[in-house]
Amino acid sequence: MVYETYGEPNEDKSNVIVVCHAFSGSHHAAGRYDDDKKPGWWDALIGDGKAVDTTKYYVICVNVIGSCYGTTGPKSENPKTGRAYGLKFPVITIRDMVRAQKTLFARLGIFKAKAIIGGSMGGMQALSFAVEYPDFAKIVIPMAATHATSPWVIALNKVAQSALLADPAFDNGNYDIEEIRQNGLPGLSAARMAGYLGYISPGGMSGKFGRNYVANDGLFELFGQFEVERYLDYNGNNFVKWFDPLSLLYLTKAINIFDISYGYDTLEDALARIESSLYLLSFKGDTMFFPSEMQNIAKIMQKQGRENVSYICIDSDYGHDAFLVEVEKFADLVADILEGKV
Amino acid sequence: MVYETYGEPNEDKSNVIVVCHAFSGSHHAAGRYDDDKKPGWWDALIGDGKAVDTTKYYVICVNVIGSCYGTTGPKSENPKTGRAYGLKFPVITIRDMVRAQKTLFARLGIFKAKAIIGGSMGGMQALSFAVEYPDFAKIVIPMAATHATSPWVIALNKVAQSALLADPAFDNGNYDIEEIRQNGLPGLSAARMAGYLGYISPGGMSGKFGRNYVANDGLFELFGQFEVERYLDYNGNNFVKWFDPLSLLYLTKAINIFDISYGYDTLEDALARIESSLYLLSFKGDTMFFPSEMQNIAKIMQKQGRENVSYICIDSDYGHDAFLVEVEKFADLVADILEGKV
Repeated sequence: MVYETYGEPNEDKSNVIVVCHAFSGSHHAAGRYDDDKKPGWWDALIGDGKAVDTTKYYVICVNVIGSCYGTTGPKSENPKTGRAYGLKFPVITIRDMVRAQKTLFARLGIFKAKAIIGGSMGGMQALSFAVEYPDFAKIVIPMAATHATSPWVIALNKVAQSALLADPAFDNGNYDIEEIRQNGLPGLSAARMAGYLGYISPGGMSGKFGRNYVANDGLFELFGQFEVERYLDYNGNNFVKWFDPLSLLYLTKAINIFDISYGYDTLEDALARIESSLYLLSFKGDTMFFPSEMQNIAKIMQKQGRENVSYICIDSDYGHDAFLVEVEKFADLVADILEGKV
Repeated sequence: MVYETYGEPNEDKSNVIVVCHAFSGSHHAAGRYDDDKKPGWWDALIGDGKAVDTTKYYVICVNVIGSCYGTTGPKSENPKTGRAYGLKFPVITIRDMVRAQKTLFARLGIFKAKAIIGGSMGGMQALSFAVEYPDFAKIVIPMAATHATSPWVIALNKVAQSALLADPAFDNGNYDIEEIRQNGLPGLSAARMAGYLGYISPGGMSGKFGRNYVANDGLFELFGQFEVERYLDYNGNNFVKWFDPLSLLYLTKAINIFDISYGYDTLEDALARIESSLYLLSFKGDTMFFPSEMQNIAKIMQKQGRENVSYICIDSDYGHDAFLVEVEKFADLVADILEGKV
């Protein structure tokens, strides 16, 4: 397992904040290495004097199992065969990701956290921490997530998986990663584009792109280029350079099968286990994990007479990716939650 | 151009109803041939005693140019080369489709229509008829469409196109159609699946599929099978047997570039040309062409002091495909419009 930390632990390690990354994220949540083109994915939130203030808190972010940034995943070497696991890698769950992190934390001497925070697949992990290890964290802040992945998101992931598998260069997972980074993998690019149908809302796309057409000659050509098409092309092609096709399959599967009630009699039973103060953050314009899904968690827990649960819907039309790109809309709120002011 | 008719023209041909088909539709709108597995795509609406009553009306439906059911399209033979046009087929527009139909109608001695009706890409054609040929139809009923395709739909189509192009068996449009019908074309299947992200709404998917898991052993396997995944697999694989990859590219392009104001100074100017009584029908749960887009047309025209324009939002959570699968929700309304009762 590979992880990054920011700030320093205090003497009794009561200032630990666990940050959980999303599908295409990594343990590199903040700061900037010399050869970084961009800082860590939540650098706007985490750092000295920022909302997750690293002069006060000791922040840790772990690359999840199944991913492709150092923690064991399907392209890791299977010690039994000396070759990559490939499609023999087992299906993993959000709960597996969380259990692995908990085990790592114990090795590091961390047995409690002040808070856990994460968005999207990171929000699922945060919620899973809260249910599986009720005495681990004082505060849990799942953002832009759900208690059970909807068929709509499963369908989106199905399109992505199918686009990838339509490309024979995927070669049943036996591709050479350096080779596809060199030559591209159109199926993976198309898969990434599918993701954007969930990441940016229809309204967000209207605001960001409109119907702007970018061809120089103004003539319509069969293959583009509306601005939104160029954006998808760019991000789809780029994705091949920094992500792994097998990780896409395994992580979308983990997201699809996520259901916090799995193994418990009911959703109510699962949620009743939570002892942490729970702050459920949604974005109004999230058309991937709809605010109503998070609100539903709060409603159930409030019916159970729980007082330490809050549902907060943040005003944003952008869509699901607001948790990454509109940090300014919730940074103060997160700071206040951590300071005990909310 | 290939077309079907239903019913008989009356003496002065004042009972003609033009039906416009959608992206994957054809001229076979109603009735059932001996070897049909299913009747025509709007058979629930069109027929003797049905809402579009073929004992009263003479109904005509034309396969659009660019499609693959007999009318000239990219797989038609280019008389200059003796081979299929392939990617040399020109980009076509909704307006081209409409102009071609108008020309055909003139050849058939049809110079006026009682009504034009169509959904989705068919709704775009209906609207285009109304703007381009203001004196052609008394009544125009565009359903589940828009005045200008949104970046959201362009993005959806981009994912479909990219998935298709990621499959090298597409071979720059030089595939043998019989061969791919035999062997499949995974890129085209994935493209079709992308379409369903627009055809069925998130809420529609929850109602239709939920999180039902269909694997016999109940164990999670990497490649499925939630019910929604199986549905997409089935429809994606099946699509290859009855549609054409190049037509997908050309028709999605025609949809993307559709803007009823194109060639006019403003949208207002374009809409001001309309003389027909316009009935704009939307479905509440349509997450492909949102009701607000159709409502916008009505608002503009009402601001212009027009009285012969109505916007009607039909209560349905299913999504865009409601115009095909929930005919019972609007059949009476269409009958009343045609009878002059609305």
